[in-house]
Amino acid sequence: MKTIPFYSMRITDSFWSERQQTVRDTTVWAVYDRFYETGRIPTLDCSWQEGQPNKPHHFWGSDVFKWVEGAAYIMESHPNEKLREAVDDIICRIAKGIRENGYYNSFYNTLNLPIYTKRDDHELYSLGHMIEAGIAWAHATGDDRLLQMACRGADHADKVFRQEDSAGFDTPGHEEIELALMRLYHYTGNDRYLALARHFIDLRGCGRKDTPNDRNKTDEKYTQFHLPVREQREAVGHAVRAVYLYCAMADLALESRDTALLEAIEGIFTNIYEKKMYITGGIGSLYAGETFSAAYHLPNQKAYAETCAALGFALFCRRLLSIRPDSRYADAAERALYNGMLSGLSLDGKAFFYINPLEMDLAACDIPYERHHAPQRQEVFSCSCCPPNLVRLIPAIGDFVYTCEEDTLFVHQYIANEAHFDDCTATIQGNYPYNGHLHISCPGKRLALRRPGWCSHYTASAPCTEKDGYLYFACDSVEIDFDMPPIFLTAASDVHADQGRVAVMRGPLVYCAEELDQPADIFRCRIDPDAPVTETADTIAGFPILEASGHTVPAQNALYIPYRKMPPAPCRLRLIPYFTFANRGKSNMQTWILTV
Amino acid sequence: MKTIPFYSMRITDSFWSERQQTVRDTTVWAVYDRFYETGRIPTLDCSWQEGQPNKPHHFWGSDVFKWVEGAAYIMESHPNEKLREAVDDIICRIAKGIRENGYYNSFYNTLNLPIYTKRDDHELYSLGHMIEAGIAWAHATGDDRLLQMACRGADHADKVFRQEDSAGFDTPGHEEIELALMRLYHYTGNDRYLALARHFIDLRGCGRKDTPNDRNKTDEKYTQFHLPVREQREAVGHAVRAVYLYCAMADLALESRDTALLEAIEGIFTNIYEKKMYITGGIGSLYAGETFSAAYHLPNQKAYAETCAALGFALFCRRLLSIRPDSRYADAAERALYNGMLSGLSLDGKAFFYINPLEMDLAACDIPYERHHAPQRQEVFSCSCCPPNLVRLIPAIGDFVYTCEEDTLFVHQYIANEAHFDDCTATIQGNYPYNGHLHISCPGKRLALRRPGWCSHYTASAPCTEKDGYLYFACDSVEIDFDMPPIFLTAASDVHADQGRVAVMRGPLVYCAEELDQPADIFRCRIDPDAPVTETADTIAGFPILEASGHTVPAQNALYIPYRKMPPAPCRLRLIPYFTFANRGKSNMQTWILTV
Repeated sequence: MKTIPFYSMRITDSFWSERQQTVRDTTVWAVYDRFYETGRIPTLDCSWQEGQPNKPHHFWGSDVFKWVEGAAYIMESHPNEKLREAVDDIICRIAKGIRENGYYNSFYNTLNLPIYTKRDDHELYSLGHMIEAGIAWAHATGDDRLLQMACRGADHADKVFRQEDSAGFDTPGHEEIELALMRLYHYTGNDRYLALARHFIDLRGCGRKDTPNDRNKTDEKYTQFHLPVREQREAVGHAVRAVYLYCAMADLALESRDTALLEAIEGIFTNIYEKKMYITGGIGSLYAGETFSAAYHLPNQKAYAETCAALGFALFCRRLLSIRPDSRYADAAERALYNGMLSGLSLDGKAFFYINPLEMDLAACDIPYERHHAPQRQEVFSCSCCPPNLVRLIPAIGDFVYTCEEDTLFVHQYIANEAHFDDCTATIQGNYPYNGHLHISCPGKRLALRRPGWCSHYTASAPCTEKDGYLYFACDSVEIDFDMPPIFLTAASDVHADQGRVAVMRGPLVYCAEELDQPADIFRCRIDPDAPVTETADTIAGFPILEASGHTVPAQNALYIPYRKMPPAPCRLRLIPYFTFANRGKSNMQTWILTV
Repeated sequence: MKTIPFYSMRITDSFWSERQQTVRDTTVWAVYDRFYETGRIPTLDCSWQEGQPNKPHHFWGSDVFKWVEGAAYIMESHPNEKLREAVDDIICRIAKGIRENGYYNSFYNTLNLPIYTKRDDHELYSLGHMIEAGIAWAHATGDDRLLQMACRGADHADKVFRQEDSAGFDTPGHEEIELALMRLYHYTGNDRYLALARHFIDLRGCGRKDTPNDRNKTDEKYTQFHLPVREQREAVGHAVRAVYLYCAMADLALESRDTALLEAIEGIFTNIYEKKMYITGGIGSLYAGETFSAAYHLPNQKAYAETCAALGFALFCRRLLSIRPDSRYADAAERALYNGMLSGLSLDGKAFFYINPLEMDLAACDIPYERHHAPQRQEVFSCSCCPPNLVRLIPAIGDFVYTCEEDTLFVHQYIANEAHFDDCTATIQGNYPYNGHLHISCPGKRLALRRPGWCSHYTASAPCTEKDGYLYFACDSVEIDFDMPPIFLTAASDVHADQGRVAVMRGPLVYCAEELDQPADIFRCRIDPDAPVTETADTIAGFPILEASGHTVPAQNALYIPYRKMPPAPCRLRLIPYFTFANRGKSNMQTWILTV
């Protein structure tokens, strides 16, 4: 299946256009400024000296590369001299810092340390992001200086890891190089990069030189080398590392028609989808090590659900859709994109969540001795992968919309756009996810439209048959209306954190209740899932604030007292899209709400 | 107020007699054997050499001292040659290992390290337990060899800390020495020990030499030296360290009529009692550092609630009762003794919980990267304070029963016994906590009986007046019947973990529901607090298993699906005393149960 790249289309979708404009106008510069101030950009030339502030860190380069990739995607549709100058400055600094042999890492080169000896030091991870940035910048601007340097780095890595086998480890502690090499292979057509990607993927879990990472994460699952990748069926360990690996496995499976690899990624996807995914599409529920937890262990207040993990999960799902249309993949991507990823960015585009809790308990933010979620999005964090990851994903959101197979155009995400490819023009018109009414056409192609998992009823302008969650039409133009009433959801019995509770969705958006909208402390509110949810006239981010029926239970000050039957006090509970929470000041919040 | 010591009484109480016999026959030897096998006892002579197994640890001595103290308490009522020989062997080993100057710590002496330089190394903590063991053994047997060695250690500490001020720190990182010195002062009458106790108490939080501990617990609250003790009002930091300090503060407050100290401990008690105590009397809810958490943060599944902390809290409450009768103190002690402490010991007396969760989720025991509760009590643990702490507390349970002030005998705990003191004989007859019917007499004294906090109705054979939770009678013999129906309880609104849930108590016993007794997965059970709880004919540990009405919700396998109104399936839920859980194999368990 062929993917239609985002740069083939003009996004007309009001929802994503607005997010893209925010990233373009605000986020990209907010992140740039933080990266400049914190030394990430100035130290790229590797001239930092002991005693100066802002000593480079081994993953600082990767933050900047992700940002450059985002800048490139913005340039695709909105060329901009200021961005060009900023990236030019970055490229010139890198050119000063790169080693003769093509190796580049601002920390290693600045300190002139022996390279490729520490498995957990993100050297190949950084190279992977350098490759992605180089490709993106070259494609967007024709300037291939960064790409050439990245290729030199990849050639050097190929020599060290594959030809000479002289590195201190076989496979990196943080995956990313694998998917980047697949991409470099596709961009350049050079088989060496495919061979090196395959080398890293095939050697993982094969017990040659690799040993568990340090920092108390002393097991093999943490970096997914407990088993050869083709034998893996469960999502384990550090969630972002995991999904980046799974992306590369999918790329290689598709490239090589490798059925063993395909079975592995399908098994892993199903494991996440059925047992390890928050309703928001967030993954990686454990604070400890930012890892996948046991099946169904999805705590709400202590959800980790890193922004990058939700984003990476969406990237994995997108790759699966290139292999085979299955609406579970697109449903999961939709969950993550509209909820657990987007919650990482403030509405004004300036601040970020790294951790995306499903319940906000401000009192818990003060708990001593334990890490806890931030009460509000922050403008800076020291481990700063999430902000530039958003900068590179949102401008490229169009990548998620279509795939094409011979005469059939598959529509996975209902993001309004006009796309041009293979002498065709595909168009999606509509106002999703504000409503589910869409007009989709692609003259000359038959349409296959995903029926969203949240949708129990739709009306279409033409007859269709359904397979694996896709509605197959014989025609090239369809009007379809996915009914989008607010619905209540329950979680599997084994998700102990959600027992006695319901969540609300409307279309792809998960809703939540912020205390500042309620008549009482949110922990004293109960929701009635047998009463209808209605739309109010108030909106947030363009969406109507919803109202559910419920009641509040009386406040109790004494720690433990005999139960007394109390008349419930009926109330209306107001619900907002999850991705918009914590944008109106500090407030307690719940996504899963106790029922009456 | 005068305390009547346990060795003045013969326990006739069927509940505690049984526990005492188990400790005497089984637990004391189970712990001894583990301590021998793990090297704690053999290395006491400080002859361990590099290369041998079982290198001593700086707190190993303290484990053995607690055990000796327990052995001594058993000897008070049940002299026993085998115990005497075991303790004799221990004393002889210590005599070989003690330094010329009186300093004893098997780790420091074996390795011949510089002493009193590391605040967190439990040296004074171990000395404190040596003192308590020495006093107990001397009182029980007349053999004062251990006591003499402990006094030499205390004299040496006095020289180093108080006279020379030459130690590397002012106050120990783990409290215990303070209460031991108070006890040594009372036993020997030597003012030097009072002065040293006061020295350690007064210097805490006064910002001279003390610095935060290592091991990432880098704040002053962790070891309660964030403020001078008289300014403290909140229970903070490591829970066991905290309550041992509070015990000593109470001892000193009583000794010195120090009202500032008294206000501090009353404030701290109230803080625990109103905001930081589990319904089981367990305290210290955080795994991280075994610490008190924020007010009302009382997670159920992730309760830490260490056995030693509940036990230490009971010891603190007992001291408060020596100052002033207030039924909150005795209620709290009762909660801890019958629930959160006793749950630490298996019914067969051989195995122990260090962590006492209020909800057992077996699936969660497998969660990677995170510490979690054990699914069953264990026979050995490396940090082994709790087992010998039970060995010393249970034989001395009588300490909790009475205090006496002039012509009034206060009864705090309803443990049947016959006590002889001051030419008086006090008797409690009854079958508490199986039922609440008691006959209490003490010819020549007026009786003041605690009205238990759980009791809303009672009948007494004589008129009385109530003050601070005590029923004051003019007579010296009373029959009283505390109604003991099962009741439902709710928790304060700010205890977010318990919202929508109720717990069940019957008398002082908290009940819980083990999955193995239920018709379904416990997480799918809902309890009806408006229906009566009845007694079944089945028993556990002599207590009737209770039955409540409720229903089960249908199992749901899919991770997230639209809510459907389902007819509830009525069921009966069976409840057992919390302290008996996890004695019939592995099972999920809940103390706070969702309501229908």
